[in-house]
Amino acid sequence: MQITGTFLDEISHDIPHQNWGAKEWDADFAHMKKMGIDTVILIRCGYHQFLTYPSEYLIEKYNRFRPSSDLVKLFLELSEKYDMTFYFGTYDSGKYWETGDMRHEIDVNLHVIEEVYQTYGHYKSFGGWYLSLELSRKTKGAVESIAQLGDHCKAVSSGLPVLISPWIDGKKAIAATEGQLTKASGISLKEHEKEWDEIFDGIKNSVDVVAFQDGHVGYNELENYLSVNKSLADKYGLRSWTNSESFDRDMPIKFLPIKFEKLMLKLEAARRAGCEKAITFEFSHFMSPQSAYLQAGHLYNRYMEYFKI
Amino acid sequence: MQITGTFLDEISHDIPHQNWGAKEWDADFAHMKKMGIDTVILIRCGYHQFLTYPSEYLIEKYNRFRPSSDLVKLFLELSEKYDMTFYFGTYDSGKYWETGDMRHEIDVNLHVIEEVYQTYGHYKSFGGWYLSLELSRKTKGAVESIAQLGDHCKAVSSGLPVLISPWIDGKKAIAATEGQLTKASGISLKEHEKEWDEIFDGIKNSVDVVAFQDGHVGYNELENYLSVNKSLADKYGLRSWTNSESFDRDMPIKFLPIKFEKLMLKLEAARRAGCEKAITFEFSHFMSPQSAYLQAGHLYNRYMEYFKI
Amino acid sequence: MQITGTFLDEISHDIPHQNWGAKEWDADFAHMKKMGIDTVILIRCGYHQFLTYPSEYLIEKYNRFRPSSDLVKLFLELSEKYDMTFYFGTYDSGKYWETGDMRHEIDVNLHVIEEVYQTYGHYKSFGGWYLSLELSRKTKGAVESIAQLGDHCKAVSSGLPVLISPWIDGKKAIAATEGQLTKASGISLKEHEKEWDEIFDGIKNSVDVVAFQDGHVGYNELENYLSVNKSLADKYGLRSWTNSESFDRDMPIKFLPIKFEKLMLKLEAARRAGCEKAITFEFSHFMSPQSAYLQAGHLYNRYMEYFKI
Repeated sequence: MQITGTFLDEISHDIPHQNWGAKEWDADFAHMKKMGIDTVILIRCGYHQFLTYPSEYLIEKYNRFRPSSDLVKLFLELSEKYDMTFYFGTYDSGKYWETGDMRHEIDVNLHVIEEVYQTYGHYKSFGGWYLSLELSRKTKGAVESIAQLGDHCKAVSSGLPVLISPWIDGKKAIAATEGQLTKASGISLKEHEKEWDEIFDGIKNSVDVVAFQDGHVGYNELENYLSVNKSLADKYGLRSWTNSESFDRDMPIKFLPIKFEKLMLKLEAARRAGCEKAITFEFSHFMSPQSAYLQAGHLYNRYMEYFKI
Repeated sequence: MQITGTFLDEISHDIPHQNWGAKEWDADFAHMKKMGIDTVILIRCGYHQFLTYPSEYLIEKYNRFRPSSDLVKLFLELSEKYDMTFYFGTYDSGKYWETGDMRHEIDVNLHVIEEVYQTYGHYKSFGGWYLSLELSRKTKGAVESIAQLGDHCKAVSSGLPVLISPWIDGKKAIAATEGQLTKASGISLKEHEKEWDEIFDGIKNSVDVVAFQDGHVGYNELENYLSVNKSLADKYGLRSWTNSESFDRDMPIKFLPIKFEKLMLKLEAARRAGCEKAITFEFSHFMSPQSAYLQAGHLYNRYMEYFKI
Repeated sequence: MQITGTFLDEISHDIPHQNWGAKEWDADFAHMKKMGIDTVILIRCGYHQFLTYPSEYLIEKYNRFRPSSDLVKLFLELSEKYDMTFYFGTYDSGKYWETGDMRHEIDVNLHVIEEVYQTYGHYKSFGGWYLSLELSRKTKGAVESIAQLGDHCKAVSSGLPVLISPWIDGKKAIAATEGQLTKASGISLKEHEKEWDEIFDGIKNSVDVVAFQDGHVGYNELENYLSVNKSLADKYGLRSWTNSESFDRDMPIKFLPIKFEKLMLKLEAARRAGCEKAITFEFSHFMSPQSAYLQAGHLYNRYMEYFKI
């Protein structure tokens, strides 16, 4: 199972920036294309005070900083140049992470979604939406937030597909700022199934694709979780992708590129579970030949050799 | 507002060493010069057992390790070669960090200051002193220590300028060994003003330049703090520089180069607050084209593009 | 005192993988050879579910993952090509780290040792065994585990030498996932001597070489500990090497390459203590010109300059 999509981690939450300009981004899209990537997903269009595009709405109403360049435009143009589909990631004010309540993010995003589609919707490469608020079980207001935002995305864009990428509350679900690598108890497979059955039921008409993050459970447990996810998605008419993390959650430096063998094990688990497409978080830091982390270039080489690309 | 000065982070406290030799340091000074840097500041001449120069005083009296090369000499010569002003950073025994009481560092430094000026004072590039003991409010013995050491620096060197670089006790004032990135409460602007009014009053005759570190408060709060600092400095006849940190305090890896946009926001805040000069901590790890952190070279390129250098 | 041996950190425990293929490993052995390395030591042949070689025993009995390549074979062949001696590191199931009881690792390793020697024992470069279970004082079951495994290694291989690399329970003995860099109290020199006297007495017939890790005590304390280790080793007929760590334990990023000067101080302490040979953990991440950590290449250059190689 090959990776055919990647997140674009701008604005980054916990991965240090690479300080690339337009030239480096163009080269990176070329590397992606060569590897077989046809889909790029903006992780979020803004975070707290920082924005990827000069949103008049966010700058005027919320006093966010005006960005020095328009990355959304750049990414859309590069997507056209390299014949890729671009998914737009919604705004994250940070309040959700502070409060645990996703409903804080609804109102601002209803406006952002409209503004963005008016500004960039004419690009041929604008192919979908990514709801950037990462949910898991017990996320307050997740179902109503996801449903409302997904509905609005579809309404303004004549039904472009909506993607989410939740996380499994497994034993490796640890914040990047925590020292440890695992916690004592992760969610059981049975609880996971029960809780996501309810969540999927609530969002089934507002979301098209679900790509669970694949790094929060053990390598030997992953296939079981992905299989449950696939069954539930099938039940509610959702499409199943896998979000195969290309960084290594098992190391004290949070985060550097993953070991090739681990990535292959996870992709193989996704294939067996019947996932339709594999995307990764993310190419530019963790798999790119021009990444500041040189392990990434070696991962790229191992990957290309393995798939004889 | 452009950066025209940088610290030289040898001996390093919490930033891993790059293991450069004389050739790499020469190349780095050339990169600095090209960017417009005219001032280099040795962060400290020694830390615990490690020294940047073969101090007979510290080796004999305190049994410190004899260094394999004389970095102070190298830096002074490179400063001459590239027409820069060198500030000498005082010794840090480590006791201050353990006890929180800066007075432990006075006696040893009175001797170091004399030894150093006798040995290196004839260099044309020896242009000032940096009191390496980073102070904030509530630092025990800070006022008397800074005053006594500053006075002594001036006395032995016919009044060469003395620089300090304190930190604001803001919400991002977190030790590098701590996991989290912010703390619940930082100092309020009003408390900050009151406390630094007293501190500046106590050190006004012993110090010439104050360059507050700019990374401990939010990006949107920074200008207010810098403006207060500037007013207080003006009141007491001190010069105001900004120490614009070129590493990113918002990321779990402590520390990698900052995002270009964040650096620009901070420099812009310093310009508006009326700071006279911008220095950075520090060029060689976080902005240099030859840094082991490749993000640094991209930051350099973005910076050079922005200022059309 | 020059470094003439290195660990090969595959499978890694807490150092991120570099994703090298056979070509990069060959180049790395060439760099090692040039530096004077004649001994390579596989840190462990497997860890938890991951293996360096396709062990039918571990795959069938314990359901471990089949590796995509055979690193043991590769390392043995490269050792032959570069005229080096290869030490095979035993398996680590991870149970020891969870329970603190080393006896969990005995049974599985008795089988691994046999399997490995049957499969790879004919290689001319297969020159010794490394018991990968790192012991310190108070490790439950350490003496009987080390003795039993060492005896078995010798029995199956006609007495090839057995190496261990214990750690001193000093003030810098801190887990990589902990934030802090030191703990309040390390073992005293006297306690250390008393406890290791007993341990050495228990393992003296089963082990040939002891190479204490040199990073857990202060730079100024190291020589005393190494001297005690040497005396005890002499008393029990064991050979004394030093395992000179080439990563820096004093920095918040865990771990990047050590400062050259620190490495030299530690090697010098080992020379004065009478250690017979210096090995390092480890060359490929922390001293190699092709390491993803560019500080490592500079460390290599400083080292080569210093020893005029």
